[in-house]
Amino acid sequence: MGRYLPSEKTVPKTIHKAMRYSVFAGGKRLRPILAIGSFELVNGKGRSILPAACALEFLHTYSLIHDDLPCMDDDDLRRGKPTLHKVFGEGMAVLAGDALHALAFEILLKTKKPEVLQEVVKAIGTQGMIGGQVADLEAEGKKVSPSQVKYIHSHKTGALLKASIRVGAILGGASRKKLNALSGYGEKIGVAFQITDDILDVEGKAEIIGKKTGADEKKATYPKVFGLETSKKMAAALVQAAKKDLRIFDQKRQIFEQLADFMVSRVN
Amino acid sequence: MGRYLPSEKTVPKTIHKAMRYSVFAGGKRLRPILAIGSFELVNGKGRSILPAACALEFLHTYSLIHDDLPCMDDDDLRRGKPTLHKVFGEGMAVLAGDALHALAFEILLKTKKPEVLQEVVKAIGTQGMIGGQVADLEAEGKKVSPSQVKYIHSHKTGALLKASIRVGAILGGASRKKLNALSGYGEKIGVAFQITDDILDVEGKAEIIGKKTGADEKKATYPKVFGLETSKKMAAALVQAAKKDLRIFDQKRQIFEQLADFMVSRVN
Repeated sequence: MGRYLPSEKTVPKTIHKAMRYSVFAGGKRLRPILAIGSFELVNGKGRSILPAACALEFLHTYSLIHDDLPCMDDDDLRRGKPTLHKVFGEGMAVLAGDALHALAFEILLKTKKPEVLQEVVKAIGTQGMIGGQVADLEAEGKKVSPSQVKYIHSHKTGALLKASIRVGAILGGASRKKLNALSGYGEKIGVAFQITDDILDVEGKAEIIGKKTGADEKKATYPKVFGLETSKKMAAALVQAAKKDLRIFDQKRQIFEQLADFMVSRVN
Repeated sequence: MGRYLPSEKTVPKTIHKAMRYSVFAGGKRLRPILAIGSFELVNGKGRSILPAACALEFLHTYSLIHDDLPCMDDDDLRRGKPTLHKVFGEGMAVLAGDALHALAFEILLKTKKPEVLQEVVKAIGTQGMIGGQVADLEAEGKKVSPSQVKYIHSHKTGALLKASIRVGAILGGASRKKLNALSGYGEKIGVAFQITDDILDVEGKAEIIGKKTGADEKKATYPKVFGLETSKKMAAALVQAAKKDLRIFDQKRQIFEQLADFMVSRVN
């Protein structure tokens, strides 16, 4: 991942240090894993998926940096480490997020596949990730409806997860049928992932999650809208449905079945 | 410009209102003017420059929104109106900037010219605009050298102005010779523009500029490093040199000569 980031010695040094701090602060690398997994599932050859996989992680990192800012979620910890603005200041955090956003496009351009860029740009704009963040911000402290919380989760988290899978499939040369099946899978596990995030905020252990629990008290979450038990059932049902979408694939699908299970069994 | 922005009725409404508030808060539209002017100067035909021209303005607007944030320049007024975060809140301002950033790429993709995207992405990343913003932020309250202030101005403002001209030339089908000439012109007027900004902060009238003067007191500026009179001479010399770059063009160049003069004669 580091080879796609400017080194800490590249001028202006501070911003490159800040970008690297956040990218290398850990994380599950779920988006690269999904992109590479999907690429391999459709029998993509070579290493052409790697730059795109990194770009997707950079976009995720940019969204986390901005999301953690005091004017947004105001989080001090992320993955067990101080958030970027705590270490480099708020101004530098805004710019480091912006820089990762721009860098991701620079890298994606190298795929020479406009359809990949289109896929990603749709997933992160106001009809995707940013749309979900806006709805999330506006729902704070308010009573939200089931459809609102579904909108937030499918956009804020789901859109980029789904796009990661689609990018892998597109670069791997998937047929339309396979691309559709993987899109269905991606959509479902994306939401299941975020429901589990909500559940961990209630039931998880801060020292394992790497950020404080109970942070979502004012936010729109599945447990708040549907209750804890129903939320767990909904996440489990999404995982089962996601696995069904994989039926058209050969046994290589096992890793994606396990990934779907991981979405709800994870503890951090 | 409005047709390239989602309407205020598009969900989530607030962010689209915020984006439109900033884009339609006025401004000189210098980047679109340079892109369209350059396109016409190299005899580009049709209207294919228009989406790119709008995208360049959206990128500029995104940078201003983030730059005005309390954690950056902390400006309350822009173009005579309250800055975006004053009206919509800081969180929404961060997201509206992000959304314009992403939207610009979405629009640029429609040009179907990867070289245009490459040009722009280079101009706004850490080797361009963001690099300049970082150096600007870090120079605050410190004594800066002539080379530092030159770096800040050529990157923070110059890079996107130069790119606007290059994008117009590329989409207009310019020869390498013409592209180089216009690049030289763009580089020079970009810096002249920012020097004039510094001068107006000292000598201008707040009611004409639309933002408070004296705001650059802690910042790295040409007047602070070179003195007011020398700064004026440097800007004038850049304009003269920029005009020389235009010599290879026919009489259509007059509008670009006037634009160069405007860079230093402007009062807002």
